[in-house]
Amino acid sequence: MNEKECSMKEALMFTQRVGQLSKALWKSIEKDWQNWIKPYDLNINEHHILWIAYQLNGASISDVANFGVMHVSTAFNFSKKLEERGLLQFSKKENDKRNTYVCLTEKGEQMFLSIMEEYNPENSSAYSAALPIKNLYGKFPELLEMMTIVKNIYGENFMEIFEKSFSNIEDTFVEQNGQLKHKEPAPMK
Amino acid sequence: MNEKECSMKEALMFTQRVGQLSKALWKSIEKDWQNWIKPYDLNINEHHILWIAYQLNGASISDVANFGVMHVSTAFNFSKKLEERGLLQFSKKENDKRNTYVCLTEKGEQMFLSIMEEYNPENSSAYSAALPIKNLYGKFPELLEMMTIVKNIYGENFMEIFEKSFSNIEDTFVEQNGQLKHKEPAPMK
Repeated sequence: MNEKECSMKEALMFTQRVGQLSKALWKSIEKDWQNWIKPYDLNINEHHILWIAYQLNGASISDVANFGVMHVSTAFNFSKKLEERGLLQFSKKENDKRNTYVCLTEKGEQMFLSIMEEYNPENSSAYSAALPIKNLYGKFPELLEMMTIVKNIYGENFMEIFEKSFSNIEDTFVEQNGQLKHKEPAPMK
Repeated sequence: MNEKECSMKEALMFTQRVGQLSKALWKSIEKDWQNWIKPYDLNINEHHILWIAYQLNGASISDVANFGVMHVSTAFNFSKKLEERGLLQFSKKENDKRNTYVCLTEKGEQMFLSIMEEYNPENSSAYSAALPIKNLYGKFPELLEMMTIVKNIYGENFMEIFEKSFSNIEDTFVEQNGQLKHKEPAPMK
């Protein structure tokens, strides 16, 4: 087997490995995510938009599309639906009149925070599946290989928002009686 | 911060980490996969069914649903469409009259092998994104954390088929003139 042959097969096998694993993992996470937000009559894209708008304290449609990994038209259409339900409002920024920004209304923020407060790790298969790793190593897997691959596909900016979302959770929520509660009415205001 | 509080936040942050990463990774892989099979007028589920039928040298609808991570009804309906196109045939096994099995027709196998032969790693974002890791460590990332999580969600049997698919590629394909070619008309017959 020459080097070229080896490398072509290696490439196919890696593509297949990462493809099968990410399909299987995402399908499981998707199901749990849908169940989590079902009582609020939201789909995953809509919830993701609320999440991004909350995290960024207002986001452009292009931010929503990038960080939510959806088409710009999908981001726009679902944002419009959220606006019609009074959960999101559209605006322009003083220093950027060209882009449309979305931010949570009071009602949208309340809904977002209620959903977070109802988060229950026991309903997450990926969480349960990762527990044996946590029990062995003392912390959850960092998924560094997966993170590096995602970073190399989507860029540094994507990862910055990704990391920022964790410090927001860290800063914004406390646990009371086995439930997450937000500390303040809104982050970074 | 007490231990419980820490663990609840840790759980949410891990769930979010694995959720965002797997959504982003899968959406990229899904796009590349769709582009790869587009010339054959197949969707991802249909191609996945052909792939599983090829790998297992005939598979029950329940195998297809399990290993393809799709509902049984989805597996059945798309298998029917493939049958109508003359790519798949339904049968019963001598030693198992209760389950419906699907296997590739000659035409289905030809199509599957053509698609494999047209595989081009340069069209895979995940492959390109993993190359820096290969260049650094001398091999592609093994994604062991991701694999363990998927194993704990879907079970040992799922992983056995998963691993088997790699040895099938190893045994069945050679590289000629920068393209994958299958060695024999069909594997394991």
